[in-house]
Amino acid sequence: MSMPGMMDTILNLGLNSETLQGEIQQTGDARFGYDAYRRFIQLFGKVAMNVPDEAFDNEFNAVKQAAHLTEDLGLTAEHLQEISERFLKVFEEHTGRPFPQDPYEQLEIAIKAVFGSWMGKRAVDYRQQFNITPAMANGTAVNICTMVFGNRGSDSATGVAFTRNPGNGENKLFGEYLVNAQGEDVVAGVRTPKPIALMQEEMPEMARQLETLRQSLESHYKEVQDFEFTIERGVLYCLQTRNGKMNAQAMVRTSVEMVEEGLIDKSQALLRIEPQLLEQLLYPRLDANADARPVAQGLPASPGAASGMVVFDADRAESLGKDQGHDIILVREETKPEDIHGFFAARGILTSRGGKTSHAAVVARGMGKPCVAGAEGIRVDVSRREADFGGLMVHEGDVITIDGSSGNVYLGEIPMVEPDFSLQLNHLLQWADEAAYLRVMANADSASDAARALKYGAVGVGLCRTERMFNAVDRLPVVIEMIVAENMAERQSALDKLLPMQRADFKALFETMAPMPVTIRLLDPPIHEFLPSEQQLLQDIDQLRHLRDSVQGMSVLAGSTMLLRPPQEATEISDYLRGMLDEHLVEEALGKKELMLKKVRQLTETNPMLGHRGVRLGITFPEIYAMQVRAILEATAECAAKDLEIHPQIMVPQVCTSEELKLIKKAVDQIRAEVEQASGQTLNFRFGTMIEVVRACMRAESLAKQAEFFSFGTNDLTQATFSFSREDAENKFLPMYNKSGILRDNPFEVLDEKGVGKLMQLAVQWGRKIKPDLSVGICGEHGGHPQSIRFCQKAGLNYVSCSPPRVPVARLAAAQACLLENDDS
Amino acid sequence: MSMPGMMDTILNLGLNSETLQGEIQQTGDARFGYDAYRRFIQLFGKVAMNVPDEAFDNEFNAVKQAAHLTEDLGLTAEHLQEISERFLKVFEEHTGRPFPQDPYEQLEIAIKAVFGSWMGKRAVDYRQQFNITPAMANGTAVNICTMVFGNRGSDSATGVAFTRNPGNGENKLFGEYLVNAQGEDVVAGVRTPKPIALMQEEMPEMARQLETLRQSLESHYKEVQDFEFTIERGVLYCLQTRNGKMNAQAMVRTSVEMVEEGLIDKSQALLRIEPQLLEQLLYPRLDANADARPVAQGLPASPGAASGMVVFDADRAESLGKDQGHDIILVREETKPEDIHGFFAARGILTSRGGKTSHAAVVARGMGKPCVAGAEGIRVDVSRREADFGGLMVHEGDVITIDGSSGNVYLGEIPMVEPDFSLQLNHLLQWADEAAYLRVMANADSASDAARALKYGAVGVGLCRTERMFNAVDRLPVVIEMIVAENMAERQSALDKLLPMQRADFKALFETMAPMPVTIRLLDPPIHEFLPSEQQLLQDIDQLRHLRDSVQGMSVLAGSTMLLRPPQEATEISDYLRGMLDEHLVEEALGKKELMLKKVRQLTETNPMLGHRGVRLGITFPEIYAMQVRAILEATAECAAKDLEIHPQIMVPQVCTSEELKLIKKAVDQIRAEVEQASGQTLNFRFGTMIEVVRACMRAESLAKQAEFFSFGTNDLTQATFSFSREDAENKFLPMYNKSGILRDNPFEVLDEKGVGKLMQLAVQWGRKIKPDLSVGICGEHGGHPQSIRFCQKAGLNYVSCSPPRVPVARLAAAQACLLENDDS
Repeated sequence: MSMPGMMDTILNLGLNSETLQGEIQQTGDARFGYDAYRRFIQLFGKVAMNVPDEAFDNEFNAVKQAAHLTEDLGLTAEHLQEISERFLKVFEEHTGRPFPQDPYEQLEIAIKAVFGSWMGKRAVDYRQQFNITPAMANGTAVNICTMVFGNRGSDSATGVAFTRNPGNGENKLFGEYLVNAQGEDVVAGVRTPKPIALMQEEMPEMARQLETLRQSLESHYKEVQDFEFTIERGVLYCLQTRNGKMNAQAMVRTSVEMVEEGLIDKSQALLRIEPQLLEQLLYPRLDANADARPVAQGLPASPGAASGMVVFDADRAESLGKDQGHDIILVREETKPEDIHGFFAARGILTSRGGKTSHAAVVARGMGKPCVAGAEGIRVDVSRREADFGGLMVHEGDVITIDGSSGNVYLGEIPMVEPDFSLQLNHLLQWADEAAYLRVMANADSASDAARALKYGAVGVGLCRTERMFNAVDRLPVVIEMIVAENMAERQSALDKLLPMQRADFKALFETMAPMPVTIRLLDPPIHEFLPSEQQLLQDIDQLRHLRDSVQGMSVLAGSTMLLRPPQEATEISDYLRGMLDEHLVEEALGKKELMLKKVRQLTETNPMLGHRGVRLGITFPEIYAMQVRAILEATAECAAKDLEIHPQIMVPQVCTSEELKLIKKAVDQIRAEVEQASGQTLNFRFGTMIEVVRACMRAESLAKQAEFFSFGTNDLTQATFSFSREDAENKFLPMYNKSGILRDNPFEVLDEKGVGKLMQLAVQWGRKIKPDLSVGICGEHGGHPQSIRFCQKAGLNYVSCSPPRVPVARLAAAQACLLENDDS
Repeated sequence: MSMPGMMDTILNLGLNSETLQGEIQQTGDARFGYDAYRRFIQLFGKVAMNVPDEAFDNEFNAVKQAAHLTEDLGLTAEHLQEISERFLKVFEEHTGRPFPQDPYEQLEIAIKAVFGSWMGKRAVDYRQQFNITPAMANGTAVNICTMVFGNRGSDSATGVAFTRNPGNGENKLFGEYLVNAQGEDVVAGVRTPKPIALMQEEMPEMARQLETLRQSLESHYKEVQDFEFTIERGVLYCLQTRNGKMNAQAMVRTSVEMVEEGLIDKSQALLRIEPQLLEQLLYPRLDANADARPVAQGLPASPGAASGMVVFDADRAESLGKDQGHDIILVREETKPEDIHGFFAARGILTSRGGKTSHAAVVARGMGKPCVAGAEGIRVDVSRREADFGGLMVHEGDVITIDGSSGNVYLGEIPMVEPDFSLQLNHLLQWADEAAYLRVMANADSASDAARALKYGAVGVGLCRTERMFNAVDRLPVVIEMIVAENMAERQSALDKLLPMQRADFKALFETMAPMPVTIRLLDPPIHEFLPSEQQLLQDIDQLRHLRDSVQGMSVLAGSTMLLRPPQEATEISDYLRGMLDEHLVEEALGKKELMLKKVRQLTETNPMLGHRGVRLGITFPEIYAMQVRAILEATAECAAKDLEIHPQIMVPQVCTSEELKLIKKAVDQIRAEVEQASGQTLNFRFGTMIEVVRACMRAESLAKQAEFFSFGTNDLTQATFSFSREDAENKFLPMYNKSGILRDNPFEVLDEKGVGKLMQLAVQWGRKIKPDLSVGICGEHGGHPQSIRFCQKAGLNYVSCSPPRVPVARLAAAQACLLENDDS
């Protein structure tokens, strides 16, 4: 008697006063007999006739109390007999009829109850909730079978087993059994079951039969089975079987081995694994056996676990982590681009503010480092180098462990299991690549990111965010120089310093990925993102002013020494005081900060997400894009000179009209001509656009005339399509929207097919009208999400690009998308 | 010899040495003859043979210098003869051939020059610039006609005239003439022409012929003509005629009268007027004859002109304007919602920051008050109550005049012309309504706005922004109370105070507009917009703390009086001092401000445009929408009780999914049931949604199931489609985008048909799939823009809604859209 998600009740019918006596005579155990009888009356009454549990429970407790017992175990056969009798009365009172003693009558009532339950409120609600339409399931079924008993003596037994080891996938029976027992005994935990391996000695014939059963089950179901069995007087019965739930490692191993054994084919091997599972295999994870209690919790923002010393700012992280070699966990209220060197130096990141798409989360995911974000119970006090973990003070240097897969934070070092990118996983993913249509590229901002992406099987870089290069510690001052430049000459001088750095970045990236494509996005974020915050600058200026005042004070002091000491000594003292601090240096630093403050205020925007960024910057400050394009093309020329085959792709962000693209293309063509002439090399590269502005979707036809490829930036496209600012939405109303069912998923995690996806489909369709073979990809966060990847396949995309650790997930998802699509057709 | 926009040159051919002599003999005026000859040689040389002007000018100046003359008038016949001869040489030197003496040869050369010019660089560039394709104009024409002379004696004359008065449209010949003169004489300004009315006395027969010509011209061209004529020895010749350019008043009057005269039909009358012109008729405008020099310039943000005393903050504006009855111009750096009472009290608004869609501009336009925005040359110093108008200091109380139609700002009071909404305009607009398909509604936030909209012919309110009601001086404190509420009870208590106010607002609006529809949009902006800025609050708190310290100081002082004075007196003094300021009151005020500051910081958003607003507020704080809906429905019930026929429409903003709409609808239905039961009235109203989020367009089918009408909010939709934040874009890069031709128009002024429009078309099409008769409108700023209105017609909308002063423009534009669409088919 079973219904999806509602009841999975097995009613053992047939017991009545008569069979009960027979049973008691046979087993000689009246206590066991009456106990089974009273259980049966209650269960039958409840399931088949809707008698409320409390009615039975009241009688049960009344007898227990009368006997002054607190434990059920103390009940004797007589007590249980009395309970059975009281239960029979309860049944009659509630149903208006005596308890049916005829087993066939019991059977008939039970069958009717199952069929009747199909239109019951709970079942109807359930089907509505899960969108189970009459076409999918119209009516239910009843299974009727004979009861067997594992408690018929020492040649009887009961147990549960997996046909293969669900912890590592080993092809060997895995489970437990109890001799002379029923399933309930295993559940009750009164006796400790034995490992199934012992059966070989204890009941060798049964072990042989079990092995045969294991093989029959797998050859029938083509899947690892989780089954229950009973042995009644030397005869093996299989009570129930279902597909076994396994961890990632076991799923991968069994997939590969079952193909090798000829049990399933490659498609089946690929389809049986939930792609998300694979991520487990790339990160260290907490040992499930460790007894650890979280002291704080945040959002699981970037998977994996890490332990290390707590440090509260990026500079300290760098000196303690990079320079002194400690394991560091960077703990901040929230992170900003200027913290980037702290990310490099840290093993993991913990923030008390921000969501899964906060700066910390996005950067950490990109780097493959664990991150717990928005742990609101934590209060960080950077100036005191301590944090309040909900009453518990944590100081710099204390060791904590964060689990970016669960969002938990622990004190001290918790044992971990290291990742295992096995040969078998490689095997499986090669099959995936053969089955897939969508190619999987990676988002990588440096040669080391790219190397990791290659290891995970990416076939190119689908997105290199050049602003990440701007944020490197040695670059940022030059970038700031460029931003605060008061005229073209000053700006150009800063750009001239950046050019060789960017060229070297690109060259290293090309060399790592050769001969695969590398897609470089020109500068995207608003430039004020590279400057410190207004608040920070105001603080700095305040401090510098104090410093200046002190220095001036010292000068005065130095002057007045003449009045107090003999001339020789006075000069010495005053020189010393004057030398202490160079007033000039302070003034210079102050001037710089004030200039930055002015610029920050000038650049402040009401809605930075919709502001002066991407190609809009490229058009208003053409020299910035010119520098980047030159760096890309000079790096290309250098590779070409070495006969290295590379495939650079230049990608323009935030485009909303083809006129923008035309203008940038014109500049690119001019720089290409200059670089070709200077280098004597012919440069091959492609020119394309991101599609992340809604208008770009609407104008896909006209953009396709200019662009050789499209790449959907679904993060921004989702923001614009919903008019949701990601940060604001995730902090303010999105959780409530998800909880109340207004939106099933967070559209920043799962691509919104009905809105954003519809726009994408229109854009692909319109773009291919002009260029039927237009290459189209996606490089937003959704590019690594299986369900979204399936949509990309349906929408006719050619590739997805995601962060390196999502590459294996995406490869498997791409294969499944293709296999399922073929299934659909 | 004429080409669109390039040349409009009339070459009087035929002059040569021989005809020149004849001419001189006949007129006896050698000076005039040679002057005409040298002019002809130069003009022919330049136009027909590309001889550069300078070559001639050099010779001309050489002769003048030799004669020691500074004025051309001093040149004698001999000088001019010498000049003619030098010009003949110049011609020969530059063309390699003598000046053609044969008139037919002159004619042939001239004709070839015209045809040749068609493929010249200037002409090709011009056609490219204005998108004139070969299909539209493939080749040019040459007109050849005999020359006539108005300088043949006192029975000859020349003149220019309009068939009707272009200043007021009066149906009477209007122009000037000169007896015995050529057209050039009028241009040269040597003699003052006479008004055409004088001709009746001076040359009555000619006046009669001119009247006949006037009638022939109009009956032929069906349009007011601006023509040139010459009378040669008593014979009238019409040299040239074209459609007359007129002001708005004249256009309206002539349209109506020409229909009455049977000269044109109503369609023609409607099509000949540029709709934008009508706005001139609704606002006072500067007297064109006033001699005024602007002292500053900004953007023409809301049309009309106003003079008044300068005031720098809203409170002063209220006390000086509303209470003391002065005419006020509110001058601010920029305005915020809390300045709204200043708008009410002022005649006009001037800001030094912000664009045409800044708060000041939008609110002023809504109120129909003149506004000049973003006058960057002005520096406002509110604390000193003065402003620096580019070096010129203006103090509170000084009188200035602003012209919101040109963006100019003047010192002092400039004379003005009052608006004139004439009977004829009413007449014309009635014809427009008959011809139009699109209905024109108005955006109105109060009964007085609505009354104005009615006067201008609106057939309903298409958008009532309830947040404007929240901003009223008596409401804002209650709204703030609601926002800072720490729990539901506190919030509900504030809402309970707002309910009767809103109900009264709605009732007044319904009564004014009955029986026309009134569309009320539920609260839209993020609630932090109702709070003062963080900066303001920090200042206030600082001041209050100082005040508290002073009060405490006084308390101490009061205490110490006991030590100094006799007891009786001391008590008196200390009571006085203590009474001076109530410490308690200060603490309370301080507490309130600190609470607000906390709230402001909590509510701060990264991208408020994409933040927690509209229906998202309505769902997270359901009690706010519930109060508004109750107010609407109770007002509806009160009107129903009076048997007043009204048509309320409830409109939900920022919707992105039908689930939101379902949730709100459920709440509305519940409140409807409650109000119906309490009032005993049956409530009739419609429930609809704004379409201003891109996803709403994509989901139009599913929204149409919930909504009885759609209203496009194209301001927000444009922002989301372009990913342009309006304020940021207009300040940072949009002007550059327009200038460089990346975007032809500012999409916030002219609806972007290819992007935003395409989305709208999809939404209409998909929405009508579900409800074929779905009512669809537009209520963004574009709803009052003629070109955008034409697009709305094409896209199948039913109505447009715009600010009241745009209603006449929209009515005419709607008629034209329909007439032109019929033309197209």
